[in-house]
Amino acid sequence: MNILVTLNSNYIKPLKVMLKSLFLSNPKEKFTIYLMHSSIKDEELEDLNNFIKMNGSQLEILYIDNSYFEDAPIILHYTKEMYYRLLAFKFLPKEIDRVLYLDPDILIINPIRELYDMDINEYLYAAAYHDKITVKGINKLRLYPYEINAYYNSGVLLMNLEFQRKFINENEIYKFVEKNKAKLIMPDQDILNALYSKKIKSLDEKLYNYDVRYYRYYKIMTNGMCDMDYVIKNTVILHFCGKKKPWHEDYSGRFHALYKHYEKLAMNF
Amino acid sequence: MNILVTLNSNYIKPLKVMLKSLFLSNPKEKFTIYLMHSSIKDEELEDLNNFIKMNGSQLEILYIDNSYFEDAPIILHYTKEMYYRLLAFKFLPKEIDRVLYLDPDILIINPIRELYDMDINEYLYAAAYHDKITVKGINKLRLYPYEINAYYNSGVLLMNLEFQRKFINENEIYKFVEKNKAKLIMPDQDILNALYSKKIKSLDEKLYNYDVRYYRYYKIMTNGMCDMDYVIKNTVILHFCGKKKPWHEDYSGRFHALYKHYEKLAMNF
Repeated sequence: MNILVTLNSNYIKPLKVMLKSLFLSNPKEKFTIYLMHSSIKDEELEDLNNFIKMNGSQLEILYIDNSYFEDAPIILHYTKEMYYRLLAFKFLPKEIDRVLYLDPDILIINPIRELYDMDINEYLYAAAYHDKITVKGINKLRLYPYEINAYYNSGVLLMNLEFQRKFINENEIYKFVEKNKAKLIMPDQDILNALYSKKIKSLDEKLYNYDVRYYRYYKIMTNGMCDMDYVIKNTVILHFCGKKKPWHEDYSGRFHALYKHYEKLAMNF
Repeated sequence: MNILVTLNSNYIKPLKVMLKSLFLSNPKEKFTIYLMHSSIKDEELEDLNNFIKMNGSQLEILYIDNSYFEDAPIILHYTKEMYYRLLAFKFLPKEIDRVLYLDPDILIINPIRELYDMDINEYLYAAAYHDKITVKGINKLRLYPYEINAYYNSGVLLMNLEFQRKFINENEIYKFVEKNKAKLIMPDQDILNALYSKKIKSLDEKLYNYDVRYYRYYKIMTNGMCDMDYVIKNTVILHFCGKKKPWHEDYSGRFHALYKHYEKLAMNF
């Protein structure tokens, strides 16, 4: 399976934890991990390469020269790296037609094969939207007049690369950013939703993009069905959304111990 | 390593979870699991035997005929099984001089070798006491006039069987129960503390009998040292003390997800 990650040096440790959980929950699968980056040091890449090899998979490094995005507009404190996942189809090998993009602040706790093999012929992406009504309302307002069905989270994106190569216009993205600079809060996610919302296949967030902050919300909304037992047995992707991250010292949350458990396993190779 | 468990059919599932965590956290060790019981069905024993074999260890079943304790006093709703761990030295093979008794409501999350090999030549047991001042005070009062140093928890007991065979008098235990019937709350634990407290080597509860209800207490008492990171890296035994158990539907707690994770692994063999 092809996995895509895009990050800088600050996220290498979380990336290893995410990958370790992926490997442990999918012991019979082989992965090719495509890493798009512009600033990670050679020794860090070497260490990451060893880590992935030791776990039976392989790393492919896609170095992106910053000059590539020389003319692309940037917003506030966001770097040009925000474009990487949206333009991955340009940089990934032409032979591969499908890749699963994953944020580093997630854990994979069950087999990922069913997600990966999902039929997305008619779509550019498959993604989950976080179904909290308030969030949805606010985001819809903000991205008006773009017609969006739902506000998808860009942390887990199954990509139909073949279709993207035909359909997505790089300049359209730049134009959108230029025009909406003032409004964009989470740029890559906003772009995804404003431009491609209708071409995104909806994933069940409880399975493929479970926001760990909302345990009680999920449980209530499902009349108790989505309890801890359900999550551990069925949820594939836990997403540690928000500012508080489980690798921070002051973190606390229902999945803290589980995260630290995978972190320990990752650090021991 | 020799592990001792004593239980009835109700605890077979938690036992498997406990054992799975033991096996996974000690991948290079072989264990002989001694199970003392009086009522577990043959098919359950067969299933447990397969489970343990599949994980590379072995099960030894010690069937205890209830008539053995015909003349032993019983208290309220407690069964005679409460005597099993205290009298294990009589039933275990004469060749083994050391065994680690473990409650089924625990998780082993790190290597257990250092605990198992601890020098206990001068002691009958090694155990941890839960260092909450109030609990200590109350229990001391209740067991007055028995001179106890601390109120040890009987859920994790490293046993010096050789010394126990020489030192422990079965009748002394029965006499104690007869005399204190009205006062005993947790019989086996009360007996252990009243009669043998001075011959128990103290273990660090943060490492070997971490009461999962007191995460904040441990953290505060250690000026923040004993945080989640410390626990996951260093604590060997997590103990799910109290009435609320992590396999109950309405459970919630900081180690819930981690418990459910091991439970899933145990159910998949």
